[in-house]
Amino acid sequence: MATSGGPEIEQLIQLMARLPGLGPRSARRAVLQLIKKKEALMVPLSAALDRAVDAVRVCEVCGNIDTRSPCGICADPRRAEGGLLIVVEDVSDLWALERAGVGMVKYHVLGGVLSPLDGVGPEDLSIDALVRRAPEFSEIVLAVNATVEGQTTAHYITDRLAGSGVKVTRLAHGVPVGGELDYLDEGTLSQALKARTAI
Amino acid sequence: MATSGGPEIEQLIQLMARLPGLGPRSARRAVLQLIKKKEALMVPLSAALDRAVDAVRVCEVCGNIDTRSPCGICADPRRAEGGLLIVVEDVSDLWALERAGVGMVKYHVLGGVLSPLDGVGPEDLSIDALVRRAPEFSEIVLAVNATVEGQTTAHYITDRLAGSGVKVTRLAHGVPVGGELDYLDEGTLSQALKARTAI
Repeated sequence: MATSGGPEIEQLIQLMARLPGLGPRSARRAVLQLIKKKEALMVPLSAALDRAVDAVRVCEVCGNIDTRSPCGICADPRRAEGGLLIVVEDVSDLWALERAGVGMVKYHVLGGVLSPLDGVGPEDLSIDALVRRAPEFSEIVLAVNATVEGQTTAHYITDRLAGSGVKVTRLAHGVPVGGELDYLDEGTLSQALKARTAI
Repeated sequence: MATSGGPEIEQLIQLMARLPGLGPRSARRAVLQLIKKKEALMVPLSAALDRAVDAVRVCEVCGNIDTRSPCGICADPRRAEGGLLIVVEDVSDLWALERAGVGMVKYHVLGGVLSPLDGVGPEDLSIDALVRRAPEFSEIVLAVNATVEGQTTAHYITDRLAGSGVKVTRLAHGVPVGGELDYLDEGTLSQALKARTAI
């Protein structure tokens, strides 16, 4: 579907449309906005992308994305080894936990979950590296998503860590803060009741 | 709200979040996607933005955005003068009409609509240029949005063109193709009935 803006603009729209959350129509709106705010938005975004292309790397220790490796979290002296190691599926989960301010912990990014249907086996995830890191920590928290694949992955990792003597835990299930009971599924509600706490 | 990715990544997220349709959360997802698909997406997008920054200009004749001025539409010899001139509020409307394949017409981008509340007067829009161009065409189609501001702008332009002897028309109101009567507002329905056509 051609626009009327020449090949450079058309190509920019097609690339923007491949970002999550943007389709062809919203990509076109975004590119028009970029062009209208050329000095205030397009030029800085172009420069920021150039810098990021050069700077971004994957942390060789934990799998986080940063501009250095080991990443800022792995290199942070306040996050001493011997504490919590939180295992997440994806970098976005790591960032979400950091925004939540979970404290001076370290992370391990699996890079996905076990999914035989999609051909994702243990060798495709960063599980061997996790088993090697585990003995340095007092507790491994499996913060994988509460999906079938996530829980399968958690079980597999628990088995692999069984001989290491490290405590393995998972996140609590329960009512989301601010959530309404009426809208929650039965599984969450029954888990929340089982894990009820004294007030 | 800091992420864990260093200032380059944080700045990229903040710039992406200023695009229409992207908020802070979706900008973060988009940037993560960019980083994960660095070679396939981030590098080409960075290059496409660089090229677009250099290449993009506003057509001095019609206000379209293109990589040359006069733009591809104004320079197209098949779109002879003396035909239809379609007046639109914004470049996105021009592109929408071109995608609809409205034919060998020319355009004039106003750059907005009259809006006293927002301090937009006739001198802020490309209306003087439209009045100068008008005599070259057989008909001026005011394809402004069917909003109060759009219709006010259409009235103002009609008054300004009154002495030029050029025929001034507007888009038809009616039932959208594929639309259901039940969901249409009364104004559209009564306009559609008034403008009914023989089958």
